[in-house]
Amino acid sequence: MKKNNLDIFMQEYIPQINDCLDEMLSSLNAETKLKDAMQYSVDAGGKRLRPLMTLAIIKANNHKITKEFIRAAACLELIHTYSLIHDDLPEMDNDDLRRGKPTNHKVFGQAMAVLAGDALLTFAFQKLSELNLSNNIKVKLITALSTAAGPEGMVNGQVGDIQGEKEKYNLDQLVKVHQGKTGALIRYACYAGAVLGEATEKQQTSLVEFGEMFGLAFQIYDDILDVIGSEEKLGKKVHKDAVEMKNTYPGILGLDGAIQHLQRLISSMKEQLAILVDEHFNIELLSEFLNYFDLEKEIK
Amino acid sequence: MKKNNLDIFMQEYIPQINDCLDEMLSSLNAETKLKDAMQYSVDAGGKRLRPLMTLAIIKANNHKITKEFIRAAACLELIHTYSLIHDDLPEMDNDDLRRGKPTNHKVFGQAMAVLAGDALLTFAFQKLSELNLSNNIKVKLITALSTAAGPEGMVNGQVGDIQGEKEKYNLDQLVKVHQGKTGALIRYACYAGAVLGEATEKQQTSLVEFGEMFGLAFQIYDDILDVIGSEEKLGKKVHKDAVEMKNTYPGILGLDGAIQHLQRLISSMKEQLAILVDEHFNIELLSEFLNYFDLEKEIK
Repeated sequence: MKKNNLDIFMQEYIPQINDCLDEMLSSLNAETKLKDAMQYSVDAGGKRLRPLMTLAIIKANNHKITKEFIRAAACLELIHTYSLIHDDLPEMDNDDLRRGKPTNHKVFGQAMAVLAGDALLTFAFQKLSELNLSNNIKVKLITALSTAAGPEGMVNGQVGDIQGEKEKYNLDQLVKVHQGKTGALIRYACYAGAVLGEATEKQQTSLVEFGEMFGLAFQIYDDILDVIGSEEKLGKKVHKDAVEMKNTYPGILGLDGAIQHLQRLISSMKEQLAILVDEHFNIELLSEFLNYFDLEKEIK
Repeated sequence: MKKNNLDIFMQEYIPQINDCLDEMLSSLNAETKLKDAMQYSVDAGGKRLRPLMTLAIIKANNHKITKEFIRAAACLELIHTYSLIHDDLPEMDNDDLRRGKPTNHKVFGQAMAVLAGDALLTFAFQKLSELNLSNNIKVKLITALSTAAGPEGMVNGQVGDIQGEKEKYNLDQLVKVHQGKTGALIRYACYAGAVLGEATEKQQTSLVEFGEMFGLAFQIYDDILDVIGSEEKLGKKVHKDAVEMKNTYPGILGLDGAIQHLQRLISSMKEQLAILVDEHFNIELLSEFLNYFDLEKEIK
């Protein structure tokens, strides 16, 4: 089978993102136990989707992907990793398994998992502020990332998610939760790509809009897989949402309704890509990210 | 009794720091429950020691304390508050009472306490990055604050503290833990004052050194009060360290040894103040911070 551009891109940049993360963590002057706990979850085999999106946008705008850009992108993965560690905690989602491996608190204990999360979150801002980029760009990225990750973004979504355990949400409420929980960081990934790749204002608007929808689609896709996926393929428990009476898209829209909603989002993303084409943006790579939402490959 | 300069200074600036924190939190676009949990701990009546130190240093260097400087100082209080919320969690120090009031997780539940802490930590960097100061100063402060608060500072100290529950430390090990746990943020408070107050390089070195020792003294003083203080005066349980077999200065040095160690640190801080006098720095306010370590007032 012929490899597409994104596969080639991933093959080139995932190892570089991983090396960069390893370098950041090994340079850390901290207790071995803390470093181990941080490293464990950073190494737990994520898809590196968020940093890849940032880098793909930089490349699409004909900019060279420098070491500093990879570092900037890797900072986002630190934040993403912290959020997974805290989400998995017993007092939160209480997950024992993540990507087929025991979760952080299962290996290092609950106190260390809280601290490893705190450490990764803070470390992301440390490394971002130390980048060899202009202060102007660094401040832009720090403002955007903290807004995306904090009480006006991801943390707020997580609060909504937890409150939803006691309350039935309608579609608008659920969308609002996921705009924070999943959408904000993916939106930021696209924003960071736009800033580092020197996108025009118009390009940036479309890229951020694309990221926003991608984040929502990502969550809907995840919810759908929880209904129709297999534990073996996903490396985590399925049918968990139903057991826990979680607010999900299939729960509100039905399975078919959720699949249709996902397809509508994909169409809207393609519209943004069409706008980007008009703005002389090379959408080839970015459009291949939409292959992620291929339900067939996960269930067959 | 005649009021000293620091009392007058506190009377003027504590309300301004509190107003600034309230303004930051009320402007927040987030779930009410999250805002309530954040506000609860921010309002829990701290001494605002850290932001006051920053502001005192700015004033001592003959700079006007602007609204932006108060905002910058308040960001440090956000970080300090997050650290208290996470420290009090059942999996950490498991404290039910803080400053005489129920701890965050006792009021809002454990999940919300984790999230309120995460939110305050991230929000501090958001507000710092949004200050109306030069990008150069903002990046300096963000680098220093993230280094002080993260895996090379406070979080690392907290890890050491937790590991110490299973291990007896010697004095050097204990000092290293507290340089992170308590020292790093107070050191940063002095650094921020030096940066915002445009201290010379020599002044900055002495101020940071002063902050480092103040942080250690702060912890020793706290350990001593746990042995000889009264629950009523302190608003928290005493003799907790002994019950939990914690590594403390009185535990390693004996009570008299710990008091002597505290006095030696106070002498060293006075030496730094003497250097600052030679550097044309007005030490009046800063030297009054040393009155904090008056054991008499807490036990009589």
